[in-house]
Amino acid sequence: NTVFNENPHRRYNILTGEWVLVSPHRTKRPWQGKVEKPFIPLTATYDKNCYLCPTNTRMGGGQNPDYKSAYSFVNDFSALLSDTPSGTVDDNLLQAKSERGLCKVICFSPNHSLTLPLMEENDIEAVISLWQKEYTELGNLSYVNHVQIFENKGDTMGCSNPHPHGQIWAQESIPQEIAKKSKNLSDYWNKNKKSLLLSYIEQELKLKERIVIENEHFVALVPFWAIWPYETMIVPKRHIKNIALMNNAEKTDFSKTIKELTIKYDNLFSTSFPYSAGIHQAPTDNEAHEEWHFHMSFYPPLLRSATVKKFMVGYEMFADAQRDITAEQAAKSLRELDRVHYSKR
Amino acid sequence: NTVFNENPHRRYNILTGEWVLVSPHRTKRPWQGKVEKPFIPLTATYDKNCYLCPTNTRMGGGQNPDYKSAYSFVNDFSALLSDTPSGTVDDNLLQAKSERGLCKVICFSPNHSLTLPLMEENDIEAVISLWQKEYTELGNLSYVNHVQIFENKGDTMGCSNPHPHGQIWAQESIPQEIAKKSKNLSDYWNKNKKSLLLSYIEQELKLKERIVIENEHFVALVPFWAIWPYETMIVPKRHIKNIALMNNAEKTDFSKTIKELTIKYDNLFSTSFPYSAGIHQAPTDNEAHEEWHFHMSFYPPLLRSATVKKFMVGYEMFADAQRDITAEQAAKSLRELDRVHYSKR
Ligand SMILES: O=P(O)(O)O[C@H]1O[C@H](CO)[C@@H](O)[C@H](O)[C@H]1O
Ligand SMILES: O=P(O)(O)O[C@H]1O[C@H](CO)[C@@H](O)[C@H](O)[C@H]1O
Repeated sequence: NTVFNENPHRRYNILTGEWVLVSPHRTKRPWQGKVEKPFIPLTATYDKNCYLCPTNTRMGGGQNPDYKSAYSFVNDFSALLSDTPSGTVDDNLLQAKSERGLCKVICFSPNHSLTLPLMEENDIEAVISLWQKEYTELGNLSYVNHVQIFENKGDTMGCSNPHPHGQIWAQESIPQEIAKKSKNLSDYWNKNKKSLLLSYIEQELKLKERIVIENEHFVALVPFWAIWPYETMIVPKRHIKNIALMNNAEKTDFSKTIKELTIKYDNLFSTSFPYSAGIHQAPTDNEAHEEWHFHMSFYPPLLRSATVKKFMVGYEMFADAQRDITAEQAAKSLRELDRVHYSKR
Repeated sequence: NTVFNENPHRRYNILTGEWVLVSPHRTKRPWQGKVEKPFIPLTATYDKNCYLCPTNTRMGGGQNPDYKSAYSFVNDFSALLSDTPSGTVDDNLLQAKSERGLCKVICFSPNHSLTLPLMEENDIEAVISLWQKEYTELGNLSYVNHVQIFENKGDTMGCSNPHPHGQIWAQESIPQEIAKKSKNLSDYWNKNKKSLLLSYIEQELKLKERIVIENEHFVALVPFWAIWPYETMIVPKRHIKNIALMNNAEKTDFSKTIKELTIKYDNLFSTSFPYSAGIHQAPTDNEAHEEWHFHMSFYPPLLRSATVKKFMVGYEMFADAQRDITAEQAAKSLRELDRVHYSKR
């Protein structure tokens, strides 16, 4: 529908059941607002003041081992705690419930200067292995019903330390983003006995216009309903409900896809591309969750250059998410980018 | 429940039906991340390069009149347009619909250097009168079913021009934030024949711990389920479904409350406090909407100081909103602040 390349419209997100307002005619808007600090590449592979580097002392007092590969530990400033006393507020219109959980930090590499796109494929595979281990072990704790794996990259995304790392927050409740997706995945599964995301990527692989990367086991695309300018989603081509169930060939392709996608991101504006990334997968609440199909999403804020981002503010907070460039334009730009990192050319 | 002053828990938002994770024990976390640029007070009441100052030429080519009070015009870079051709995408899992609408800019004052807390009460009342006029006139357009009034203040909140101004986006669809609130307000109305927000503020006025300001016709409070560190909500004490239905005494109190609240905000960290503010009220879709009770919410990002904000990133994007200080702590801080602006003491 070419009308939608140029005219305002709303698109429906089949996973969350929410809408996004798209204003493709507005990309000409000049920007006189805030600009982000340009990124300065790191060179030191070890920083004696970094609390994530091997052998250093952490803020909480603990000491990191001389780790050589992906390494995880309990967050010194965890937002969730395993020994939270249980309690409820049920006072008319005031409703609250205590929440138990556990927060971990995952260092992706001992090398302070790296990021996922600059890491070797097999070192990314080691990160994936650790994600699998943590998902399984944390998920097995009796009080953990959901395990959220994510990465905040870049100081624009609230990351306070450039050492390559991500986080895992495991908790009692099913958070609402997962609850929304579970509902829509279930509805489709119950009706069609097929994974909603499997049907979706089949449709996208035919149309091709939103595909960024395709290999034997994975596809990376800009979803039709993307909110962030260069938002993408990595989806396995097989219906796999959680990351622990990948076979070895899939694990290798997952790591390849992460590397290739994040290289494209860095190449887009010749900078270390900021984003929040997260893996959505089956909750660990002992239900079967046949409806679930795991995927990893990237929400990057940059819009026009290394220093101009999209602000999700007034209208977006009070009404609907809003974007200017279309998902198709974003996918085309990403698809056409080089697979070699700009710093290595 | 004092357990909740110190332990992680989730709170329920009766308006949206969503949850927020509260981690009150985590306020001790040190911050080594991004800091915002400190605010530099403006002194010039007129800026020849500002496209919002009276008599200046705008980016779209139009010229501003020599306006003396609140003044509105159609946004030169509107995200919504009145002449959008209608269309639909209904291709299996791809669903989209064209969206008609209109975007306006409202200059709050001809004086380039002011902000709401620095304006006179009767000049704020002139802004409220213009909001009423626009809500009514835009709402009367046959294709407009919702009118969203909002302000993005400060460059941290994506505002690209310090001249005091807000925006209005009027459109065909009911945006999802309003749809969620309509549902919960309706459910309560149908069951109790009473406004949900009226019952809520009655309960809060008894408890007092989350109240920031109370006068004859309005209350400003930190809602029990607040997401942003110093989030507040201004609610009329009478069940009024939209801003056009306020009487004169209410209008005066509304303007007083806005001034007093925004002065407290500026005084909190001795800076021009950034926020997005918005008014939620009855849609203009020709339904009765007896369930609606208008309110104005403020979502300010600052957390610890004039330069350290809360980032709603990884966990918050993929799972649940999360906050560290409790609503009660935030309300206490705001309540105890001076009613005289720090720059005038
Ligand atoms: O319209 P403005 O002020 O140029 O832009 C600002 O407000 C809009 C509405 O909330 C947002 O879509 C933009 O991201 C933001 O920068
Ligand atoms: O845990 P960190 O890295 O200190 O903090 C960062 O990620 C958290 C989880 O998304 C957020 O709650 C914080 O606002 C953000 O600054």
